[in-house]
Amino acid sequence: MATVTAYAAPAANAPLERTLVERRPVGEHDVLIDIAFVGICHTDIHQVREGWGAASFPMVPGHEITGIVAEVGPGVSTFEVGDRVGVGCMVDSCRVCENCRAGLEQYCADGPVWTYNAVGKDGGLTYGGYAQTIVVDENYVVRLPDALALDTAAPLLCAGITTYSPLRHWNAGPGRKVAVVGLGGLGHLAVKLAHALGAEVTVLSQSLRKKDDGLRLGADHYLATADPATFEELRGSFDLILNTVSAPLDYPAFFSLLRTDGTMVNLGLPEEPLPVDLRALSGNRRSMSSSGIGGIAETQEMLDFCAEHDVAAEIETIRADQLNEAYARVLAGDVRYRFVVDAATL
Amino acid sequence: MATVTAYAAPAANAPLERTLVERRPVGEHDVLIDIAFVGICHTDIHQVREGWGAASFPMVPGHEITGIVAEVGPGVSTFEVGDRVGVGCMVDSCRVCENCRAGLEQYCADGPVWTYNAVGKDGGLTYGGYAQTIVVDENYVVRLPDALALDTAAPLLCAGITTYSPLRHWNAGPGRKVAVVGLGGLGHLAVKLAHALGAEVTVLSQSLRKKDDGLRLGADHYLATADPATFEELRGSFDLILNTVSAPLDYPAFFSLLRTDGTMVNLGLPEEPLPVDLRALSGNRRSMSSSGIGGIAETQEMLDFCAEHDVAAEIETIRADQLNEAYARVLAGDVRYRFVVDAATL
Repeated sequence: MATVTAYAAPAANAPLERTLVERRPVGEHDVLIDIAFVGICHTDIHQVREGWGAASFPMVPGHEITGIVAEVGPGVSTFEVGDRVGVGCMVDSCRVCENCRAGLEQYCADGPVWTYNAVGKDGGLTYGGYAQTIVVDENYVVRLPDALALDTAAPLLCAGITTYSPLRHWNAGPGRKVAVVGLGGLGHLAVKLAHALGAEVTVLSQSLRKKDDGLRLGADHYLATADPATFEELRGSFDLILNTVSAPLDYPAFFSLLRTDGTMVNLGLPEEPLPVDLRALSGNRRSMSSSGIGGIAETQEMLDFCAEHDVAAEIETIRADQLNEAYARVLAGDVRYRFVVDAATL
Repeated sequence: MATVTAYAAPAANAPLERTLVERRPVGEHDVLIDIAFVGICHTDIHQVREGWGAASFPMVPGHEITGIVAEVGPGVSTFEVGDRVGVGCMVDSCRVCENCRAGLEQYCADGPVWTYNAVGKDGGLTYGGYAQTIVVDENYVVRLPDALALDTAAPLLCAGITTYSPLRHWNAGPGRKVAVVGLGGLGHLAVKLAHALGAEVTVLSQSLRKKDDGLRLGADHYLATADPATFEELRGSFDLILNTVSAPLDYPAFFSLLRTDGTMVNLGLPEEPLPVDLRALSGNRRSMSSSGIGGIAETQEMLDFCAEHDVAAEIETIRADQLNEAYARVLAGDVRYRFVVDAATL
């Protein structure tokens, strides 16, 4: 066991505080990682506020982790001390169910072991990346290509894979029109990734406030959803709509923007059920779906793709003692486009 | 113009009455059909009651039509007098939009011309199949294979294609598990078709009342949704759920029955928006969709498939003067499984 400095919420809705947590000894197949940077994901805030249901405390959030391997267990074959690595939203899964065998560990039949607010295979509560170190089974660690920086790559481990996976699954690429709803942490990476994949990309944002950014990040078009003309103009346009907004939306209005057989994939998950008029789907065999992160192999594929296509997050680096302030700013939409904590300041 | 006997609703929610309607002269590419049988679709009742919005009256419902060609226009090349034919939910479309050119006339960008309660290309109100004859452009008429009877084939023109099209689109076939929710007019054909396509078929009905029928029609399993154990037992089972029920359902409960990447296709359209919890989709990249009938070529394919695999509707034949009583029985779920009106009784 090792005691390390971390930031934790002691109870639901409580501010994060500097504290100490225990990390398990490095086991046969474990990798000990000295954390370099950790991104702040909207999920961290949902979880600390118990927006998605009862949670376990103290909670050390953080599942967009980059760092350097500091120690490996005797059975580890894929990593060595000094390797640059990343850890995302999950740190284990059953490994034997149909989904795990298909590389879809995120949909593990038993539920994967989430990086925090979960019970690990050792029976203890998992603590995330707002900490100096983390110990993770090598099969749930990914390699950071040399071309990616430790800080701007951190958000790829959740925001990146969460957008890359559905873009790939629903065939975003040349000749396909993709809309990204919302230009925040997820949205800005969705734009970069969809553009890099060769799709024609449209950002649909409430206003045109971030239009210059959107076009710079790779969008071909940028329209305001507050303008009803947008919905007239774009009717029946898109093969795929990636909705990155957690706030409730007028779904049928967005369905009308899909072409025949188009799909709206919702990545931001509202805390309440929302009314859906099925007739808005039936007109053109449209679908509504949702997806969660990606598998481990796909996460590695995404990092390699980002290295090759020069994709990384736009970040604002903060000190650990700025975490609570950063949470407030995320809720206010006041970040372009992801906060990343420098773990050296813990 | 020809004046023919028909049954029409003179106003919203009014009972159907025997009346006379005009049919247009047989044009260059038109086919005049002596109607033999016409099925009663739940849509007829929705429309007469204005359940899907304002409608035009008098309304002659009926879009599950079989009959014999009695006259053809000079430009007609595909049909001759005496041919056995069918007409479904649409009688025209723009023919030039992307969907029409792709054989998806049902999703015509201008909206197809529906068989009734619509404005035809001649500017007149369309009248459906509760009538002695109908005049339809040959491109929207399908051929009835010899192996299909005029009476039991009639419901294939709407209920058949409405279930066949999504079964084909979502790849129902050997090795795939398909659930059919509701064993009514659509449901009983969905079971027969999915079975004929080679899928493993499960009926999910409120009770086990129709279990013997379901198994006889081709279902491999039949479970009651009123029993909570059903949802435990079938969790994560299905590649495809075809929901044929118009009444509101607990959608997230049904989503939980889908495998990873499974789709729930809603064919019954509730008159009100329903709450959907997106988190029930995200766990396994599940989708919710809806589809409407099928294209003309696909409708012909469906009829040929039914002839080859001995699929037809289970019907109760009625006289035209029993139409209002039949509507009441449809609403009470008291029909196994489709009413068909003998047009000779008009």
